[in-house]
Order: sequence, then C-alpha cells, then structure tokens
Amino acid sequence: MTGNADLIARRERLLGRNMSLFYEEPVHLVRGEGVWLFDADGRRYLDCYNNVPHVGHCHPRVTEAIARQASTLNTHTRYLHEGILDYVERLTATFDKSLDAAILTCTGSEANDVALRMAQAVTGKTGVIATDHTYHGNTAAVSQLSTRMPPVGGFGGHVRHVPAPDSYRPLGGEPGDAFAAAFTAKVEEAIASLEQSPHGFSALIIDPFFANEGFPELPSGFLDGAVAAVRKAGGLVIADEVQPGFGRTGRHMWGHQKAGILADIVTLGKPMGNGHPIGGVVAGSETLNAFRKAFRYFNTFGGNPVSCAAAMAVLDVIESEKLIENAATVGAYAKAGLARLADKHDVIGDIRGSGLFFGAELVTDRSEKTPASDLATKVINGMRERGVLMGKLGIHQCTTKIRPPMPFTRENADVMLSTLDDVLSGL
Amino acid sequence: MTGNADLIARRERLLGRNMSLFYEEPVHLVRGEGVWLFDADGRRYLDCYNNVPHVGHCHPRVTEAIARQASTLNTHTRYLHEGILDYVERLTATFDKSLDAAILTCTGSEANDVALRMAQAVTGKTGVIATDHTYHGNTAAVSQLSTRMPPVGGFGGHVRHVPAPDSYRPLGGEPGDAFAAAFTAKVEEAIASLEQSPHGFSALIIDPFFANEGFPELPSGFLDGAVAAVRKAGGLVIADEVQPGFGRTGRHMWGHQKAGILADIVTLGKPMGNGHPIGGVVAGSETLNAFRKAFRYFNTFGGNPVSCAAAMAVLDVIESEKLIENAATVGAYAKAGLARLADKHDVIGDIRGSGLFFGAELVTDRSEKTPASDLATKVINGMRERGVLMGKLGIHQCTTKIRPPMPFTRENADVMLSTLDDVLSGL
Repeated sequence: MTGNADLIARRERLLGRNMSLFYEEPVHLVRGEGVWLFDADGRRYLDCYNNVPHVGHCHPRVTEAIARQASTLNTHTRYLHEGILDYVERLTATFDKSLDAAILTCTGSEANDVALRMAQAVTGKTGVIATDHTYHGNTAAVSQLSTRMPPVGGFGGHVRHVPAPDSYRPLGGEPGDAFAAAFTAKVEEAIASLEQSPHGFSALIIDPFFANEGFPELPSGFLDGAVAAVRKAGGLVIADEVQPGFGRTGRHMWGHQKAGILADIVTLGKPMGNGHPIGGVVAGSETLNAFRKAFRYFNTFGGNPVSCAAAMAVLDVIESEKLIENAATVGAYAKAGLARLADKHDVIGDIRGSGLFFGAELVTDRSEKTPASDLATKVINGMRERGVLMGKLGIHQCTTKIRPPMPFTRENADVMLSTLDDVLSGL
Repeated sequence: MTGNADLIARRERLLGRNMSLFYEEPVHLVRGEGVWLFDADGRRYLDCYNNVPHVGHCHPRVTEAIARQASTLNTHTRYLHEGILDYVERLTATFDKSLDAAILTCTGSEANDVALRMAQAVTGKTGVIATDHTYHGNTAAVSQLSTRMPPVGGFGGHVRHVPAPDSYRPLGGEPGDAFAAAFTAKVEEAIASLEQSPHGFSALIIDPFFANEGFPELPSGFLDGAVAAVRKAGGLVIADEVQPGFGRTGRHMWGHQKAGILADIVTLGKPMGNGHPIGGVVAGSETLNAFRKAFRYFNTFGGNPVSCAAAMAVLDVIESEKLIENAATVGAYAKAGLARLADKHDVIGDIRGSGLFFGAELVTDRSEKTPASDLATKVINGMRERGVLMGKLGIHQCTTKIRPPMPFTRENADVMLSTLDDVLSGL
C-alpha cells in the first residue's frame, strides 16, 4: 500500500489535484484478460464495470489487428484507404437504411461535438434539448449539455433540460401512458421555449437507454411522442449510443433500436475499438453533406487505418462469439439473481437494466424510496475490497452500475452476486 | 486507375461529399516504412509531407510498444497506472521547470479545447487572441479561432484576430524591430478591444513557429513584446506545439523555446504517438488545478496505457536516433538546395523554415512578390506524379509545405530537390 501512496502523490504532482480516481483504496492495475483485471500484487479482480474493453480486456483478435495494421500503414483520410470504407460499410449495415454514412472521430466527445453541428447545419438553428442528468462528453461545446457546473462565462442559453425519465419515481404517477405523456409534454415545452428564443430548435440529444440517468425501465413506445414532437418542429433526434451501443443491452445492436425509435444522427464512442481511441457519427448522407458544406471538418487521427482495423475486429468478435446473445442471457440471469437478493436485503429498492448493463437502486426506505447514495458508495468499496469492480450512477447516485465486458458468463455473475450478498449482509 | 474511381465513389457514398482528398489524382496507400509510402500498384512515394509518423512510418519500436501494451492492459486513468506517470514525468522534463504537469487527451483539437478553458479558469475571462490565418483544431470551441467560415449561429464575439506575421511582406516595412513592434501593437490593440468587451481577455494562442501561416523567418525576440503585453494584461500565453513540437524545427524540442518565449500552457498533438491518437496539455500545476476546480474533466481514452507506451517509444526514438540533430542538419542541407534552385527558377520568391519544416514561397513576379497559388497546386501535383508527396500552405497558399518524417536523410532531400527542379523546369 506504500506503493499506492507513492503513486497517488506522483499522480497529484504530475496530473494535478482533483483528478478522479475510483475507490477509497484505489486499484493499481498492471494486466487485463477477458473479464479479469490484475493489480501490482498479483490480485485478481472481476471487472463488472468497464464497457470500453467491450469484447474483453486485451482480446487477441483486436490486439493482433492493431499490431498488424500499425506495422503496415497508419495515415489519414486525405489519402485513399480501403480500411475506413470497409468498416463504415459494415457498420452502417447494422443501422436503418436511412443511416448510411459516417464520420469517424477519436472519441465520443468529438462525435457529439460534430453531431450538434450537424443538426445546426441541417436546421440553421442552435438550440438543443437534453435531459437534466446526462453526460455527453468533455469538449467545451458538449459540456454545455451538462447541468453539473456552470462554465466560466456562463451557460450559452441554447440548452433546455427536460427531467430524465425515472421509472422508479415516474413523472405523471404510475409507469405507463401518463409517464410517457409527461416526458413528451416536457420536450414540447422545451421546444416551444427554444423556438421563442434567438437560438431556435435544432435537436433533441438523448442516450436512448438513459444509462447515466439510471437506465429506467421504459414502456414500449415511451419515446414515440417526444420524437414526433421533435420531427414536427423540424428538429433532429441525436441518439448517443456511446453506452448502449454495440449490443450492450442484449438483442439489439443499438439502444435506439431497443427503444423502437429512428434517430437522425447516432454517435458512437467507448466500446467501438475495445479501448483504442475511436468514435464516430452515423447519419444519412444528406445530413453529412449539409454538415460538410456548413463547416469545414478534418480529423487527423479520425478514421486512420489502425483505428478502423481495431473497430473491425470488434465487430468480428461480437459476431463470432455471439456476444449480443450472451449479453441477453447472462444479463437476464444476473438480474434474476439480483431479484433474489432483493428478497433478502431491504436496501434494494429497484432492479433495472437490460443485457449487460443493469443494477440495483439502493434505498434506505422502500416505501419512501429514499435514495441511499452513501450506502451505495460503501457497497462499491466493499465489492472492490472483495475483488469485484463496479460503480454507481443515476439521478440520485444510488444505483449500482454493472456494465462488464461482454464475454461475462453466468459463473462471473454468480461471483458478483455472492460477493454482493456478502457485502450487503455486512452493512 | 479504375480502382481509384471505385474507391472515390465508395468514399463519397460512405463518408459524404466534400471530404478533402489530396492531389488531382489521389493516392491509394497500402504500406508505409520510414520516409516511404507505397500505393496499391506497388509504386513508392517519398513522404515529404507527413509529420504525424514523426519517427518514421511504422517504426518498429513504436509498433512493438503498442502491441506489447495493447495485449497487457488498456484502461483509463481512474485506476492507478505507472505508464502515464512515467510518460508525463519524462515529457515535462523537456520543458521549463514552470511547466510541470499535464492532462493527456486523444487529439490536438481536444488539447486546445482544454487549453482555452484552462486560461478561462485562471483569468475568469473568455476572450482570446489568435492570428488571422491560423488553425488550431476541429472542435466547435476551437473552430471559433479560425476565420475561414462563420459557424451556424455566428462567431461568439470573444475572438480577436491579429495579422499573422509575414517575414516576406513584413508589417511595419523591413524585417527587424519595426516588424516586431507592429505585431506587438496589433496584440495590444486586440487586448484593449477584448478588455472593453463583456468577454475580457484570457489568452493569446499561437503556434510559435506559425506553421500554417507559412513559417515566417522571425528575428530573435520577435514575440517578446507581444508576450509582455499579454502578461501585463493578466492573460496567458498558449503555445500550440502540434506542428513545431518534438524537435521538428531542429535544435529545440519545442517551438516556443526556439522563439525564446516562455508559455503558460502548451498543447501537443499529431506527432506525439507517431499516429496513435494522443494529444496533451502541459502547464504549471497551479494552472491545471485551477482548470480542474472550475471544470469537471475526464477523458475516457486520454492517457490510457497504450497511448502512453506509444508516446514514450516516440521519445525513446527521438533520443536514440538523434532525430533533432538530424532535423537541423538535413533541414539546413535541403534549404541550401532550395536556394540553389532559386538561382535557376524565378518562381521561387522566398525560402523559409527551420529543421524539417521548410519550403519555398512561389510567386509569379519577384519584385511584386505576387502569390502564385495555382502554380503551387500545379507543382504539388507534379511532384506527386513523380513520386514525391508534399503540400502547400501559408497566408497566400503559395508556399510548399515540406515536413517529412524526422529520419529524412540528405539522400532523401536530394531526391526531393532534383524532382522539384524537374517539375519547376517543366512549368
């Protein structure tokens, strides 16, 4: 542990103070393989958190693809190269026919930064609607979508926030039609407000799975009214698939497909290259052309041959290892296990999620549904001490965030569940 | 060539129209090695353009470092890892003592996006000064620094542009004190204008080598007055080292060191990982802490172990292959060669540059210094036809952009020079 104290001191000196670090006792990692991570003392951790190593830490097919392409050629898109064309062709084939072209970037933040400007190019307006507990990335423009902290110089005034849907405490009373109608009404209000402002209305940007908001269980058709309102006002729907994308939620490749809506622009990030920095924006070619006409855009590293090789290998592995099916079956198994734990532990107020993105909302009082955020922190740290890595999130920061690499097995789920049982019993 | 037509059509369909592509007859690359690139027909091109593959295309030490780390561990900075600490320690050791900490990003654009907010955090103001022919990246915030095209919704009003220094046609008459004084006066005017605006003055952002502006030959101390004016007004100096950094200009590791100024914030990009997507912001820890206090910032891929391994290998190769010294000697040799060509070809109006970033400004009339932009395009395409890749840039877009990988040799320079002689003779 002296080693960690030294590392933490060096980190503060070299990277600055207030740089976020997980757990009361941070983990010093040196190796990863599949769903496992190993620290400097050789201790093994079950990774129930990281979605970036989507097909598993250090998957050999991805690392071999990277090594092969990095030693063959790595340039930019101002020369012709087949790698980016083959990848974008295969990627867009997983979307609705109307989403047939893409711009590749290096991060999901860059992708959302471009997506906002695409909507501006199409509509000639700049106003955006987002949910009030969202996060879409770290650029100056995209940070304006967060409610967290006003930037120096203040918010731009072009963003309206609507309440994030919360199926555990639904707006409009019980889950069902009233819940969806209440969300639609909030979106309509925000559109009207933007239309009355100098900014006008360009887009609604949502993670269709509402991951950061605590992945509420939404009734079928929940977003239909909001999407219709956006289209009626001439705006675009941007689906941020950085978290639910690439089959994470089981059965569907994309979160907006699961939600049953059609997006005009889709943004991709984290899992796309299994950790290699690549992101992207998928849209119809008309939308892309409008963007390229209104804004000059070139991204030096975006769509380079190595990034494309990494991303192509990720698609290969998802398919050959049937990882979407695995997410559906193992996710359902793990959720059922959480339900059994709820019979035993009153602190579990709600269980939600889909595929390999699920968790339990912790409460101090089930009838009042009082959020137990400090308790969630305790649970996360207790799990880490016992060798299982997970996080917490949600509107009240009291929902466990279980989002493991996609090759997660039933046996892995059993380890997570028995450890959680143990931690909850010790509270 | 049918192959290229097919690729171009696929490209337009999958990546959108108006995506920039080099040369009248684009090059379809399949392999790179050192300073050489190879197309699909097996034809070899001497790369006199690409600075991203800084230590040479597919350098084995870099690709091996990437392969090794990618198959060992690739996670984010919310866990402890020594790779990022070792790299930042070694990187910051190449700067003035006052620049002792860093934030790692994935691109130079992300780095400049952060740098602008760092200056905002320190000063509480948002106004920025840039030159009128610059380019600092592609995010929405950073694009505001370009004069090229007004974005949808208009420019933010917080940017003031000063005329880029042009040593061939100097403001204030002859190169010398009047030239520098004229630049200083423009910066002082811009500061006053921002101070009178609601934005206030936060920073001057410059590439200290003024690469995109045509790398003018600046007298020693040229920037001293401007920097003093910035400091007097409480603003920060941001040095964008994406192009001159990592020893490119010969003798100095950083462009601001060559210019003899001290920067408050330094941004890094392109050459940092030899093509692997990594960028960064180097600053004093007080500045970093102010940023982290005023803005929440986390970059998922930024500073991941693989990126750091790639970047560390780049520093290793720069040192072990003495590439900075090579840039100085081969650059001087090539510039002398260009001077000999100028005796023969009247179209060469001026020869400028430093280390392995140099070129000739082409004019239709030496006495009038009339920019020959179309001719420059012709030259670039003629060079490409003869197997030498270069570009053009500058205020008048008539300066050849010669910026090869750093292991460029005298023999490579001879090939470039004789080909250029040939092309110029055929005009």
